[in-house]
Amino acid sequence: MRCEIISVGTELLMGQTVNTNAGDLARELFSLGIGVYYQTVVGDNEERLAEVFRQALQRAGLIILTGGLGPTEDDLTRETVAYVLGLPLERNRDWEQQLEEFFHRFKRPMASLNLRQALVPQGGKILPNDRGTAPGIYLDLQERKGPIVILLPGPPREMLPIFREQVIPLLRAKLQDKGDLAVLRSKVLRVIGLGESTLAETIAPLLKNQSNPTLAPLAKGGEVHLRVTARGHSEEEARTLLDSKAQELREVLGDYIYGEDAEELESVVARLLRAKGQTLALAESCSGGLLSHRLTNIPGSSSYLLAGLVTYSNEAKAHILGVSPATLESVGAVSAAVAEEMAVGARRLCQADIGVGITGIAGPGGATPQKPVGLTYLALAAENFKYSHRYEFWGSRQDIKERAAQAALHLLRLYLLEKLKPN
Amino acid sequence: MRCEIISVGTELLMGQTVNTNAGDLARELFSLGIGVYYQTVVGDNEERLAEVFRQALQRAGLIILTGGLGPTEDDLTRETVAYVLGLPLERNRDWEQQLEEFFHRFKRPMASLNLRQALVPQGGKILPNDRGTAPGIYLDLQERKGPIVILLPGPPREMLPIFREQVIPLLRAKLQDKGDLAVLRSKVLRVIGLGESTLAETIAPLLKNQSNPTLAPLAKGGEVHLRVTARGHSEEEARTLLDSKAQELREVLGDYIYGEDAEELESVVARLLRAKGQTLALAESCSGGLLSHRLTNIPGSSSYLLAGLVTYSNEAKAHILGVSPATLESVGAVSAAVAEEMAVGARRLCQADIGVGITGIAGPGGATPQKPVGLTYLALAAENFKYSHRYEFWGSRQDIKERAAQAALHLLRLYLLEKLKPN
Repeated sequence: MRCEIISVGTELLMGQTVNTNAGDLARELFSLGIGVYYQTVVGDNEERLAEVFRQALQRAGLIILTGGLGPTEDDLTRETVAYVLGLPLERNRDWEQQLEEFFHRFKRPMASLNLRQALVPQGGKILPNDRGTAPGIYLDLQERKGPIVILLPGPPREMLPIFREQVIPLLRAKLQDKGDLAVLRSKVLRVIGLGESTLAETIAPLLKNQSNPTLAPLAKGGEVHLRVTARGHSEEEARTLLDSKAQELREVLGDYIYGEDAEELESVVARLLRAKGQTLALAESCSGGLLSHRLTNIPGSSSYLLAGLVTYSNEAKAHILGVSPATLESVGAVSAAVAEEMAVGARRLCQADIGVGITGIAGPGGATPQKPVGLTYLALAAENFKYSHRYEFWGSRQDIKERAAQAALHLLRLYLLEKLKPN
Repeated sequence: MRCEIISVGTELLMGQTVNTNAGDLARELFSLGIGVYYQTVVGDNEERLAEVFRQALQRAGLIILTGGLGPTEDDLTRETVAYVLGLPLERNRDWEQQLEEFFHRFKRPMASLNLRQALVPQGGKILPNDRGTAPGIYLDLQERKGPIVILLPGPPREMLPIFREQVIPLLRAKLQDKGDLAVLRSKVLRVIGLGESTLAETIAPLLKNQSNPTLAPLAKGGEVHLRVTARGHSEEEARTLLDSKAQELREVLGDYIYGEDAEELESVVARLLRAKGQTLALAESCSGGLLSHRLTNIPGSSSYLLAGLVTYSNEAKAHILGVSPATLESVGAVSAAVAEEMAVGARRLCQADIGVGITGIAGPGGATPQKPVGLTYLALAAENFKYSHRYEFWGSRQDIKERAAQAALHLLRLYLLEKLKPN
């Protein structure tokens, strides 16, 4: 089944909003063996939307439109799709009631415009939305020799749950009926500590002459993602091919592979902390709380993250963490010694097993000839253990924050794997 | 000039990477009056890329391709574009030298694959890249009655600086030569404290019968962005139309408008803090450092943010911030009283003018029948000032963290505008 994704919204075409939906949908569809052949973005304009939708009707078996279901007058997807298909719009009483309850529950006034969101093209099925006021709509035109057309709200936090919980099961059933459940399986091996081209040289014999599974490395925010994709006649065949190639890669790359698929480095660190029953205290300066934010994105982080201390000022470093004013004076806040005292101080203050210290110059200001923007020191302290390292990151303020947090997670992982030597 | 953006990469088509480039380019092009008519995503496949590129050659005056310039063998954009255009690839000695220096500077081994990145289709101009190994390429085919074709590396941190610093001036000169410098001006008014449909009702008379400027509201992460777009025959005409409509909206919406364009709420808070010479200390629990991360994204934040304390455990709340164990025991960590004691404690510990406390249940675990996931208390403390408020946020763990940080910034802004009453 060939799929086409149409993302509707002038804010997407003009770049005011990042189009995450098309990619998220593609990833979900891939697991059903449904290939996305075109991703198109079109603005909130009835004529152009109608044109793009008409073109899609001629070439796709599955058309997914996201966006343009909101309450305001420039939201036109529902009306345009109904118009192009020649289907009348009908009021859905159930959804009208849902809307009334929704606004009552969140104690907000209901705008009369919201009632448009309960209109459905004839024959369409409402896909309830429990996080917003616009439901999705599922229209199966296969009896008319047409495609399946699915309308979904634009906000990802509404769109994705509807897609996963309601659309995927409908599509899966459809594919099974037709004996079309193709078998493509994919896995991402996440590599840290090797650049993209070094990685490519390391696995050169495997990259050469690849056909099934295929391998594709991709540099991404301080790490490399290596995508392995296998195709088979059955689930078992695809899975076996995939697993054996992944195993080959694991043998070559060893600990450079830290995780798979959507597993973030912070999840791996969290899992190791939990497995080892270790607790953590963070002292961040240039990373500004980003490391703490990443680690607390993991559910249950309260069991190992005791505290994160963003000690931006020298006073806070001295007063809260106990960094010695003499050290700050003699070598400056951006130094190995201060990173170490921060790690030690955070650990002591929180009585944690492990302390981490990060100090650097995120820029754009604050650099000196000796200390350029991007210069960063990381330290890790534990019982009878001290480690620190000097980095020169490059990029914008946010890049440097990201690379510092990423490097700290990398150190934590190595430490927890007992692969980090004290210095 | 009609522009088409082609984003190359199977990782985009499959959704492994979010396609931010197309939107970022569209936003930059808009300011030159260049409209993007199609955004297409295509995989790392020579045949399909050639097909999409051939189609673009027939309908666009400007074609921008991003991605597929990397060092590995699945990076095919340079070769495919040269092949379709019938142009030989030539070695660029300058860039070969740059590559050698780049690898030397960052003390990395240079892979032989990297040398492919110094190949340029005949007649093309190298656009140097000082953040990576793949330069951009600018090919003007107008003498052959063809379009302008621009190749840019895929990683946004490399692509965007090349585009802004090198491509924009080239395009601007081109448009000026042809007298085509169209005049479209756009502005986003950022609204906080009003939902999308309530906002739409508030400005209903302005939304009705809009033509030039146009107005488009868009809900986005706890706020609404209202885009105003004006078209004119001259810069002055467009600017005047835009400013007068923005003024009308400001009169209706008043303080609900907190900023314009890319100005984030944290920038506005930072500006107010600086203008008033106030310092800040944060005590975060459920938001896990996100508020601190957002505020430290602003250059110069060290002048007002003294410290951010992510006190996740009860012990940290008591030990570091001095929250009373009796309060924790009697009303629990997620309560107005604890939020207030956190704010007061952070303020006292850092001797800051303002303290902020955030405590809540980010989920998915940790809820009780009385305290559901999403329940959050925020508090703000200052000299002779105490304020706290109860929220029920909904959504995922990350949604709740985001909404809590956003609400805290909203409170800070109101306080600094002297619009927050103590309670």
